[in-house]
Amino acid sequence: MKKEKDGTVKVIPLGGLEQIGMNMTAFESEDSIIVVDCGLAFPDDDMLGIDLVIPDVSYLKENISKVKGFVITHGHEDHIGALPYVLKDVNVPVYATKLTTAIIESKLKEHNMLHETKRKVVKYGQSINLGCFRIEFIRTNHSIADASALAIYTPAGVIVHTGDFKVDYTPVFGDPIDLQRFGEIGKKGVLALMCDSTNVLRPGFTMSERTVGKTFDNIFNDNKQSRLIIATFASNVDRVQQIINCAIKYGRKVCVEGRSMVNIINVASELGYLDIPDGTLIETEQMKNYANEQIVLITTGSQGESMAALSRMAANLHRKVTIEPGDTVIFSSTPIPGNEKSVARVINELGMKGAKVIFQDTHVSGHACEEEIKLIYSLVKPKYAVPVHGEYRHLMAQKELAEGLGIDKDDIFVLHSGDVLEMSQEKAEVVDKVQTGAVLVDGLGVGDVGNIVLRDRQNLAENGIIVVVLTLEKYSNQLLAGPDIVSRGFVYVRESEGLMEEARAVIEQAVLDCLDRNVTDWGKIKGTIKDTLSDFLWKKMKRNPVILPIIMEVDD
Amino acid sequence: MKKEKDGTVKVIPLGGLEQIGMNMTAFESEDSIIVVDCGLAFPDDDMLGIDLVIPDVSYLKENISKVKGFVITHGHEDHIGALPYVLKDVNVPVYATKLTTAIIESKLKEHNMLHETKRKVVKYGQSINLGCFRIEFIRTNHSIADASALAIYTPAGVIVHTGDFKVDYTPVFGDPIDLQRFGEIGKKGVLALMCDSTNVLRPGFTMSERTVGKTFDNIFNDNKQSRLIIATFASNVDRVQQIINCAIKYGRKVCVEGRSMVNIINVASELGYLDIPDGTLIETEQMKNYANEQIVLITTGSQGESMAALSRMAANLHRKVTIEPGDTVIFSSTPIPGNEKSVARVINELGMKGAKVIFQDTHVSGHACEEEIKLIYSLVKPKYAVPVHGEYRHLMAQKELAEGLGIDKDDIFVLHSGDVLEMSQEKAEVVDKVQTGAVLVDGLGVGDVGNIVLRDRQNLAENGIIVVVLTLEKYSNQLLAGPDIVSRGFVYVRESEGLMEEARAVIEQAVLDCLDRNVTDWGKIKGTIKDTLSDFLWKKMKRNPVILPIIMEVDD
Repeated sequence: MKKEKDGTVKVIPLGGLEQIGMNMTAFESEDSIIVVDCGLAFPDDDMLGIDLVIPDVSYLKENISKVKGFVITHGHEDHIGALPYVLKDVNVPVYATKLTTAIIESKLKEHNMLHETKRKVVKYGQSINLGCFRIEFIRTNHSIADASALAIYTPAGVIVHTGDFKVDYTPVFGDPIDLQRFGEIGKKGVLALMCDSTNVLRPGFTMSERTVGKTFDNIFNDNKQSRLIIATFASNVDRVQQIINCAIKYGRKVCVEGRSMVNIINVASELGYLDIPDGTLIETEQMKNYANEQIVLITTGSQGESMAALSRMAANLHRKVTIEPGDTVIFSSTPIPGNEKSVARVINELGMKGAKVIFQDTHVSGHACEEEIKLIYSLVKPKYAVPVHGEYRHLMAQKELAEGLGIDKDDIFVLHSGDVLEMSQEKAEVVDKVQTGAVLVDGLGVGDVGNIVLRDRQNLAENGIIVVVLTLEKYSNQLLAGPDIVSRGFVYVRESEGLMEEARAVIEQAVLDCLDRNVTDWGKIKGTIKDTLSDFLWKKMKRNPVILPIIMEVDD
Repeated sequence: MKKEKDGTVKVIPLGGLEQIGMNMTAFESEDSIIVVDCGLAFPDDDMLGIDLVIPDVSYLKENISKVKGFVITHGHEDHIGALPYVLKDVNVPVYATKLTTAIIESKLKEHNMLHETKRKVVKYGQSINLGCFRIEFIRTNHSIADASALAIYTPAGVIVHTGDFKVDYTPVFGDPIDLQRFGEIGKKGVLALMCDSTNVLRPGFTMSERTVGKTFDNIFNDNKQSRLIIATFASNVDRVQQIINCAIKYGRKVCVEGRSMVNIINVASELGYLDIPDGTLIETEQMKNYANEQIVLITTGSQGESMAALSRMAANLHRKVTIEPGDTVIFSSTPIPGNEKSVARVINELGMKGAKVIFQDTHVSGHACEEEIKLIYSLVKPKYAVPVHGEYRHLMAQKELAEGLGIDKDDIFVLHSGDVLEMSQEKAEVVDKVQTGAVLVDGLGVGDVGNIVLRDRQNLAENGIIVVVLTLEKYSNQLLAGPDIVSRGFVYVRESEGLMEEARAVIEQAVLDCLDRNVTDWGKIKGTIKDTLSDFLWKKMKRNPVILPIIMEVDD
């Protein structure tokens, strides 16, 4: 016991606090580091052309000999999505529950990395030892099955990390969150609680997943003449189960559209997380053999994502499914902030094709609201509070909540990524800062697109580009060809032929002036071209395209 | 009377039905056309670099001799913003109430068009005669003062157009909506009602603007130690008045930041729509002479617009105002769909600087909810219903509402822009379709950016550009210089020097192969360059930049 009392532990968030997504936190003590979660973030609107964003793990690479493993709370992209990238540099075992592991495995398979990665499935209640840490997995509820909280036993005391969670007393699959265990661990004394902040601004309790099932039942009952099309999050296996249950009750066959939906349903039913009686599922091609009222179609696209199945149906771009008057389309989701307009567009398009659209009471959140967070605090009664998972305003709101529950405000830490929070039974403080950041992934390139490239893309996007090219004689510096002008994303050339010819003449004159004055520095000639053309276009059109002068040299 | 019974009128929406904004509707009968509103739309996310969007008015240009005037319902951009562009082609008088006219005039002044445009101020209750039409202005309430509904007396009967409206029994400035007049006109018989659909999906009634004043009073009372910063829509003069009233009551001076806010406050107080006692306003530079608790700052930026005053304060980019711990910032607005993420970003940034942010009960909508729309239908009791102002789902919801009120579903017309709805006392039907569309404005260019240019910008934004340039000898077709490769928005050149050199070598080989085979068609050589480079980059990086080959020719 003495050792524990004397020990310290460092909590080092490597992402997830400056943005939604990219969740990753290192815990360090003695010669051991464990990492909780390894998520990606989706690019901001100004990250043009970027596919996804992963955390900078320089700190882990520098301390690779200490790193014992990744401990994953659940299978959402913002908690597992960076694994295929990070494991290339930090190849340590991955610990997670059964469904979470299966989802990770299908991701690793896509990246051809399955065989070089060690995985271990952990059960609720089970503990694993990693260096000086012991980590216990505790059952929680969330919008994906098999979600875990973690009790992390450290030389300084126990840290409870909730992961993403809600309290569901009547879950669709499995048991409710193990509140007893939270209480038992809390009774013995907890050093710190790291609790999900996502819904802290919402008062009350999050409704049970089962309430959505009741809504579905009503919708199935009220729309017996319609084909039903239900869009939801692929990973919400319980939601899918409830749709299937209704389908069986009301005698409908089930089709599935959207790659991620098909994948998850395969994985979940193989592992027994989904119960689909034989003969329930049909291929989309078979739909024509059934009347509309015998069919329910489960699909991706509940966020209005332009490439997802439902959006393609709405836009008449789907190969297999055509929206028909009389169809009833259910959005079993709420728009994630930023997606409101895309969702509205899809709803309008569906309406124009004669479909009825339902989006009320068809979704519940997977995150704990204010009262559930208070419940966890009251069971765990931590010495220190470290709000996690949310934007700054959410973290601050949880700080206020924790203060309201009697935790000293100096014992609550709203951290930034990279902060090194050192805790012991005696005190806790931020003692250091390590390198963190967002690494952009574009195609196969990881980190080769940065701010300069993004700024260029932004300029190109706003204004297009004009390339000015000319050929000079190497020794005499005589203008042999050009200047020629080519543009992309600037104007219809047809509409502005006169203007472009005028611009060419202006540049030619500027170049000839340079050459007459024996300017031989190509940098200066390029600068003159840029300035001349830029002034000309601003005066004529109030526009500011990217100007790229290229000089070629011919050895005559 | 006989003539009226025999007459017909055509309603031709030229915009505003496929999107929020760009409201414009032509009414045509005999030899007369009048146009209600002339609004702009803000560009969609995929309209890269576009400043604003205006309606295609080809139909008005083709029938210019018939067009008698623009009748404007109120001074919001989506109802007046296209005037400076459209008046250049369709120069007819503009009729509107006093404040609306003043806002239009300040807009025309910016475009140096004030003197070539005829304007006429119309009072509530007053009618104007335009060709065979008589138009009466009816007082309504909205989130801008001086909003009007229109009773349009046509040879076929009366059409009531609500404009944007709400029912406010206790408005801050002026009188409530003239419900009696709606009733009186309705009693005499109305051919068609064109009613605002924006909030039809919201049950109940929209709260009075005055309720926001009460919230402000509480906030002023609860935050007596804070500097107060309140962001709201510049055009909501009543909101500004209520802030000023509170400032006076609680002994604070008022600063104003944001160009549009300063403009509107000037216009509105000159015309008597704002009552600001002398000594209330101070310049922002004078703030330093007062304690924080003596100041309230009114600012633009309630939508998180990156260039607006509040966003610049939050990002530490504002020249005059620095956010301090203890400041209280009030968002007197709700995010317009699409702006949620920007608003959240500003809230987070303000929080990080120690400001308290309030956004609850600080805004009411300017649009009628379900019960108010029912009220107008019940007063007007039209023969035909033509829902306006809203997305398709809103128009359809109003259709359903009108059916519920007993209007025959064949007498309700959800139109698309360009539809020609011909109405008489006997029947109404869509008889024709005229040209409509969205004209993109980029800088001084109106309509010179279209789909091809936008697609180029999209490609440039996603992937950047690679320019390949080479010089050939004119007669021998010998490669004199290049191929050189220059890229923008593609990769850090430093990070991928080897790759770019490899790409150059691949292209050089492909070009030399062409020349060896005596290919003289430059189109073919360019095609080879594109294909070769594109294959190479996809294989190496899974990326797809725009490739622009340029061949120069030197006459040796």
